[in-house]
Amino acid sequence: MSNPSATPARRVSRPAEPAEAVRSTLTPDNWIEAATDVLVSQGIDRVRVDLLAGELGVTRGSFYWHFKDREDLLQRVLQAWRERATEELTHRLGMASADPREQLRDVISLPFRGRSAARAARIELAIRAWARRDGMARQAVDEADSSRIAYIAQIFSSLGFTILEARSRAFLLYSFVVAESQISAPVPAAQRADRARFVERLLLQRVDG
Amino acid sequence: MSNPSATPARRVSRPAEPAEAVRSTLTPDNWIEAATDVLVSQGIDRVRVDLLAGELGVTRGSFYWHFKDREDLLQRVLQAWRERATEELTHRLGMASADPREQLRDVISLPFRGRSAARAARIELAIRAWARRDGMARQAVDEADSSRIAYIAQIFSSLGFTILEARSRAFLLYSFVVAESQISAPVPAAQRADRARFVERLLLQRVDG
Repeated sequence: MSNPSATPARRVSRPAEPAEAVRSTLTPDNWIEAATDVLVSQGIDRVRVDLLAGELGVTRGSFYWHFKDREDLLQRVLQAWRERATEELTHRLGMASADPREQLRDVISLPFRGRSAARAARIELAIRAWARRDGMARQAVDEADSSRIAYIAQIFSSLGFTILEARSRAFLLYSFVVAESQISAPVPAAQRADRARFVERLLLQRVDG
Repeated sequence: MSNPSATPARRVSRPAEPAEAVRSTLTPDNWIEAATDVLVSQGIDRVRVDLLAGELGVTRGSFYWHFKDREDLLQRVLQAWRERATEELTHRLGMASADPREQLRDVISLPFRGRSAARAARIELAIRAWARRDGMARQAVDEADSSRIAYIAQIFSSLGFTILEARSRAFLLYSFVVAESQISAPVPAAQRADRARFVERLLLQRVDG
């Protein structure tokens, strides 16, 4: 849809590009990344084609080689986020350990993965705030939440919990992962590691009665 | 500091107000509430004195009867949020049931309190996103998180858990409350109620070994 080679008619209807080189060096991903950075640092209202073009040092017109309009760009920002965020969890289903306890430990360790985790958390928070006032963003967030919770529930199911219990445990563990990445109140590293171990033990435990 | 009667000098140095009536009808809280609404619906960058004055139908100058500058207003927005958000939890310490299990149930039920809970969640999310790019907001969020977690930890302590375990349990329960209010992916009401009951039971349970 936004691949120019798939829609040659668009080339003709757009104004001539000043620099042929620009078109070949800037990829759609460059625009998506720049838009995501602005979303995080300045908020969704500042994600504007003219401002992004200025920042990337290209003409406003060159944007339209890759995207239909601003809406199209925003949709691709959400899509890129979803792919990365969900993949982060689910690419482990196939590979990694087949041991569900290992998989669980893997999920719990997600917020502790240094700078890339911190950046991912910033992006996610900005998208969640945006989702409160935009239906398209909200749908993307809801779908990402649902598929991540379903993935974790599957692990608990394979550990022998009933479907209902697996879902509740998955929601609670997902809450923990989201909160660990969002809550920045300073806590000693040892205490953080301790509570991760505690959460693992508690969530693996049967409930009495 | 922003009470005009406490700083009479400011009255003299400001330009004359066009309508004496306006000054007496608009309170600082009106400005704080309007600023909070704009923060949630449009983002922090749109919280500007000129835009707020236009929306409230008063002159820009009348703002300065109550606030030193925009920074002062933003600080009061954060302060108002903190007071409401923390109070929501902690006013129960003194009153309500003295039974810690009842207090725990009370905390768990927080995200289920209808429209006011939904509005509070929207405000909190907007403030968390703002805190990612502003030190003042971040400090307010960190302090609110810390004091709410400490409050919950106190309940677990009074149930006989060690300090370290009470803190871990409190963090996990707080995660659940934050996630319940943030995650909007549709889930049947029965399932939501079920997982709240599950969380209560699990968090009251001793950990083996």
